[in-house]
Amino acid sequence: MSHNTFGHLFRVTTFGESHGVALGCVVDGCPPGLPLEAEEIQAELDRRKPGQSRFTTQRREPDQVKILSGVFSDDRTDGRQFTTGTPIALMIENTDQRSKDYSEIRDSYRPGHADYTYDAKYGIRDYRGGGRSSARETAARVAAGAVARKVIPGISIRAALVQMGPHAIDRSRWDWDEVGNNPFFCPDAETASFYETYLDGIRKDGSSVGAIIEVVAEGVPPGLGAPVYGKLDADLAAAMMSINAVKGVEIGDGFAAAALRGEDNADEMRAGNGDRPRFLANHAGGILGGISSGEPVVVRFAVKPTSSILTSRRSVTRDGDEVDLVTKGRHDPCVGIRAVPVAEAMMACVLADHYLRHRGQVGQQP
Amino acid sequence: MSHNTFGHLFRVTTFGESHGVALGCVVDGCPPGLPLEAEEIQAELDRRKPGQSRFTTQRREPDQVKILSGVFSDDRTDGRQFTTGTPIALMIENTDQRSKDYSEIRDSYRPGHADYTYDAKYGIRDYRGGGRSSARETAARVAAGAVARKVIPGISIRAALVQMGPHAIDRSRWDWDEVGNNPFFCPDAETASFYETYLDGIRKDGSSVGAIIEVVAEGVPPGLGAPVYGKLDADLAAAMMSINAVKGVEIGDGFAAAALRGEDNADEMRAGNGDRPRFLANHAGGILGGISSGEPVVVRFAVKPTSSILTSRRSVTRDGDEVDLVTKGRHDPCVGIRAVPVAEAMMACVLADHYLRHRGQVGQQP
Amino acid sequence: MSHNTFGHLFRVTTFGESHGVALGCVVDGCPPGLPLEAEEIQAELDRRKPGQSRFTTQRREPDQVKILSGVFSDDRTDGRQFTTGTPIALMIENTDQRSKDYSEIRDSYRPGHADYTYDAKYGIRDYRGGGRSSARETAARVAAGAVARKVIPGISIRAALVQMGPHAIDRSRWDWDEVGNNPFFCPDAETASFYETYLDGIRKDGSSVGAIIEVVAEGVPPGLGAPVYGKLDADLAAAMMSINAVKGVEIGDGFAAAALRGEDNADEMRAGNGDRPRFLANHAGGILGGISSGEPVVVRFAVKPTSSILTSRRSVTRDGDEVDLVTKGRHDPCVGIRAVPVAEAMMACVLADHYLRHRGQVGQQP
Amino acid sequence: MSHNTFGHLFRVTTFGESHGVALGCVVDGCPPGLPLEAEEIQAELDRRKPGQSRFTTQRREPDQVKILSGVFSDDRTDGRQFTTGTPIALMIENTDQRSKDYSEIRDSYRPGHADYTYDAKYGIRDYRGGGRSSARETAARVAAGAVARKVIPGISIRAALVQMGPHAIDRSRWDWDEVGNNPFFCPDAETASFYETYLDGIRKDGSSVGAIIEVVAEGVPPGLGAPVYGKLDADLAAAMMSINAVKGVEIGDGFAAAALRGEDNADEMRAGNGDRPRFLANHAGGILGGISSGEPVVVRFAVKPTSSILTSRRSVTRDGDEVDLVTKGRHDPCVGIRAVPVAEAMMACVLADHYLRHRGQVGQQP
Repeated sequence: MSHNTFGHLFRVTTFGESHGVALGCVVDGCPPGLPLEAEEIQAELDRRKPGQSRFTTQRREPDQVKILSGVFSDDRTDGRQFTTGTPIALMIENTDQRSKDYSEIRDSYRPGHADYTYDAKYGIRDYRGGGRSSARETAARVAAGAVARKVIPGISIRAALVQMGPHAIDRSRWDWDEVGNNPFFCPDAETASFYETYLDGIRKDGSSVGAIIEVVAEGVPPGLGAPVYGKLDADLAAAMMSINAVKGVEIGDGFAAAALRGEDNADEMRAGNGDRPRFLANHAGGILGGISSGEPVVVRFAVKPTSSILTSRRSVTRDGDEVDLVTKGRHDPCVGIRAVPVAEAMMACVLADHYLRHRGQVGQQP
Repeated sequence: MSHNTFGHLFRVTTFGESHGVALGCVVDGCPPGLPLEAEEIQAELDRRKPGQSRFTTQRREPDQVKILSGVFSDDRTDGRQFTTGTPIALMIENTDQRSKDYSEIRDSYRPGHADYTYDAKYGIRDYRGGGRSSARETAARVAAGAVARKVIPGISIRAALVQMGPHAIDRSRWDWDEVGNNPFFCPDAETASFYETYLDGIRKDGSSVGAIIEVVAEGVPPGLGAPVYGKLDADLAAAMMSINAVKGVEIGDGFAAAALRGEDNADEMRAGNGDRPRFLANHAGGILGGISSGEPVVVRFAVKPTSSILTSRRSVTRDGDEVDLVTKGRHDPCVGIRAVPVAEAMMACVLADHYLRHRGQVGQQP
Repeated sequence: MSHNTFGHLFRVTTFGESHGVALGCVVDGCPPGLPLEAEEIQAELDRRKPGQSRFTTQRREPDQVKILSGVFSDDRTDGRQFTTGTPIALMIENTDQRSKDYSEIRDSYRPGHADYTYDAKYGIRDYRGGGRSSARETAARVAAGAVARKVIPGISIRAALVQMGPHAIDRSRWDWDEVGNNPFFCPDAETASFYETYLDGIRKDGSSVGAIIEVVAEGVPPGLGAPVYGKLDADLAAAMMSINAVKGVEIGDGFAAAALRGEDNADEMRAGNGDRPRFLANHAGGILGGISSGEPVVVRFAVKPTSSILTSRRSVTRDGDEVDLVTKGRHDPCVGIRAVPVAEAMMACVLADHYLRHRGQVGQQP
Repeated sequence: MSHNTFGHLFRVTTFGESHGVALGCVVDGCPPGLPLEAEEIQAELDRRKPGQSRFTTQRREPDQVKILSGVFSDDRTDGRQFTTGTPIALMIENTDQRSKDYSEIRDSYRPGHADYTYDAKYGIRDYRGGGRSSARETAARVAAGAVARKVIPGISIRAALVQMGPHAIDRSRWDWDEVGNNPFFCPDAETASFYETYLDGIRKDGSSVGAIIEVVAEGVPPGLGAPVYGKLDADLAAAMMSINAVKGVEIGDGFAAAALRGEDNADEMRAGNGDRPRFLANHAGGILGGISSGEPVVVRFAVKPTSSILTSRRSVTRDGDEVDLVTKGRHDPCVGIRAVPVAEAMMACVLADHYLRHRGQVGQQP
């Protein structure tokens, strides 16, 4: 991952600022001949779109995606559109750029935000809505992820919110079907009800909370991952950590594995179907030695609480003067919620890339 | 990070198997004119070397490093050796390759190891000592890290073991000077004493435990990191996750940040020295928006328990027959211990790379 | 250079097909704080624009560029726009997409074109106007080059057509000021007059001719280039060879150097100004050992004749049937002419990239 | 190509100086399961080895290659050695490091060499034998090329010297079998005889001459190459231009194509065998739109005369004083000769890389 590009064979380059003309991405290296309609990308974007419940920012952005290149249809395809193997450029124009007074954010550094560090690095900063450091950039990832999902046949990628603030779900109640039934992408209906009240309280306090997201990929063939620095888990760690506000990433048992003894952690095997062993457990989260084992790939990551809050915080201005700041505006009280579709997109992109890399080096369909 | 190379301007490519002829690395893109003697690299390698206490594998490897290229000295330099800006190749020859019977490991898949996944990917595997998937590869990283430490002036990088099995240290007793006084790189002398007894028990049981390592870089200038996929934390996450047996990585407060409220997590600022603000806390672990803030960069990662244990585990053979396996041989009861110098090396490499990348794009010394 | 991206620190990714919605590029890694207005990019695009004389295709494309991201202005900058260090996305919408009958080009392979090879590779092809293989893609390069020109202070990059068909210019009459005075970017006014008559004849025959272009960069500091595979001349060779229809690239004396003796080819040196030697000749074209010497960087490349001609050629259809083809439509009789601004753009991008790479590794302004 | 690495999936990183401890390379991304013995690599190295006739440098280097990693054999393979998919490190130790007086080359800049530019870039330089800029580095390429040849089944790669000084061969006498029969890799026996006398004269004069090399790959499947910056010809241009002393590269008709008319240059097609057309000519040198057509890939490049000559040349010292220099020592009077096996190696590496890249993106065996 370098600059604003990630992936080795399936490469995604994103661009755009929160309040600029447009944002988008170029997906390069996609296999040819995959069916791809704008509507499919739009469906993914709509899941991430702000303003869908009172628990996400009220900024109104239609987030309408346009495919600029890399697909083709004609009468021979009956009007169905296919990838051609050339770069797929996707663009989302910004529409809700309220004219507002940016003087405070222009001159002061909001605690927890990237205001100071962007200034320290570049000496110049598009401060409107956070500019390039805004989570709005993740719309471009979701669009790219919709393309990536097409690459590996038979794969399923789903994510869910498994903790909000200090409140974890009850995993025994996990039901993927519930994820679409509440505004939190929460797989535990009972905890989701609790979150409504809880997050309302946080929101009314002008505060915010963090969250933990879990993303699971099923149908990943064994053999994906390229030791030792192109390990599948290393690339997943980078992919998830690159999402705004993420502060930790773990695979399988993750940090809990540190507390285990060897005999509890090593997933045993028995004879399975065909030439694959059957694993009796999946502490490893589907990855051994950086290479997929055929078991579900399980990744979790922690999102810090939204830094924009209505409580006054101490800070400094560009010129070094001390100030007290309140970040007004339309904010997500739990920015982790909208990270759920982003997590799926990043998983899809990483797996698509490794699928192509494996096929390149080893040849057979893994 | 692709294949066996990481870094963008400061690039490290490693090679070698556990029981092959040699292992090593090529460090490319190092600035010219840095003093570099083999002894300095050797000193770092000696910290990672096996067989230094009864708590690490008894394999006896001198791990003697040889510089093959990229440095120069003559009478004008008074015999002192300097980097020339060309690739620095470092080689460590393997000496302790006991002839032993590999038939079991050749035909069966050790649970928790990469045996099955390497076979699934490549169809062929150097099974002796784990081949390429052996933690022995990390010697090459430590060698590269010794070079990387030279790149940023005034930087300090230190790591410590902060949890073994379920037993965390008492952070109020943290003393960096203690790290060198016990065989665990533990900064808390009292807990280190406890670990002696604890790990002896684990070892005698033929079992193993995991650990958590913390690595801290001080003196990192603000401005390092390249949004949005070349974020400093994204690269650190990949770097640490690529270390053998690592299952989780976090920055600053990490997973604990998910449980915080916004007003507790956002590090406040006051007027500081010169043109830098003074941060009143460092929940962010020195990184905001993927860019260093000038505060200490703090990374923690979890290492799973060593998979090679003396307890019999269920598994299958290459041919799919069910077997019960005991992994005999010389093992680390807590492989996390020797990950401490490796963590420092990876931190040094990532920071060196981002230092050069920043200087390339922005120009001034950050 | 991989897929549709080139450059290491100054990275350009282009997208778009000849008759698609839009084409453009993302310029990533540009230094912050450089003044950049759309008008400056437009001025370069206008030099490459088709339909400016009877000697280029009559396709009417305004080639209007839009900056989508990566720049910023506010009242503090007096409305002047500056780069911010984030990705600069540039877009050119296609407007002249005449509805026409593509059935012939859809089913048959035009000799000299990439029709067959795209089909052989991808199995699907946007055949309208050549799709991705159209020289229209070079508009995106010219736009990127306009940004690249800003990176190195005091640099001058100019290109000229020095041969059309078998007719070379008389180098003794070389006058850079003439380049803008004729429709061929020819620095020799007398030969330019001859080309008018000559190319009219070619055009009326429904034929085409090749050309040789020379591009010269002055003010390049010594020290740019990264041995041994990031050599400045290797990157320039790739950059120029990647331009449509280019079949050969040479540096300095190029192929003629093969016929020289050592004493004639080795550019002698004498004491110069300051710490740089003065070279008494520049057979090397400003590059020694892959690194710039401070002398003008001189590159020449050969462009083959336009493959679309009105003479009937033998070919086959997608289904393998034999056909005779005439490529009707609006063509450049000498596609080399419009390669002149493209050559300048590629030179600018390569030099900008190496300038940043050098600054990254070595630190001082070279 | 960046720093000292080239290739995207089949990646080669080389290291080493002319008079350092050792030189070599790491080949990363090689497919697993390819038979590979050190002897096969040695056979290629022996073709490039100096001191085989009076027409190459009399430096005596056995150039003995050692495989350090990435291959495996056991009783199941009957002792035959196969690649494992992990990095293949190859090392050649330097043995003939005559102690000599380097004071002149240390302090003065040899015209035509990289002495000045390395100093300008790095400020420090291993001047012994040219250090990193020595053509000795190409031994590592030849070793890597021996591995690359294994990747594409049924491919044939051969190179020959087709011009020495101003004297081109007679192509009507081309006989590949003659290439091994003379010390010049010349396919025209009659001209080879002439070269003996000619080059003896050059050598006795203490002078040198340039050369042109042609390399031809047969059996390249159609479809290799990745538009638009990963074009097969762009990568070949970079690969050849990166060879020491190369000043020009051309594909197919190359520079001569500039003088052709469209109807002569566009290779016509007729129905062929199976699903491939039959091309009636190959002006394009096997590449159309950056993608292989299935025709032989034909590349030529120009090598400048050896810069080390016995004729006194004007130059300056490091301190800027004017001097007259004679480059004593053991030199190749025509360094182009030993570029022949290097050309084959670079062709093999580029094609292997594109073969894997194509398989990655598109899937089927091309």
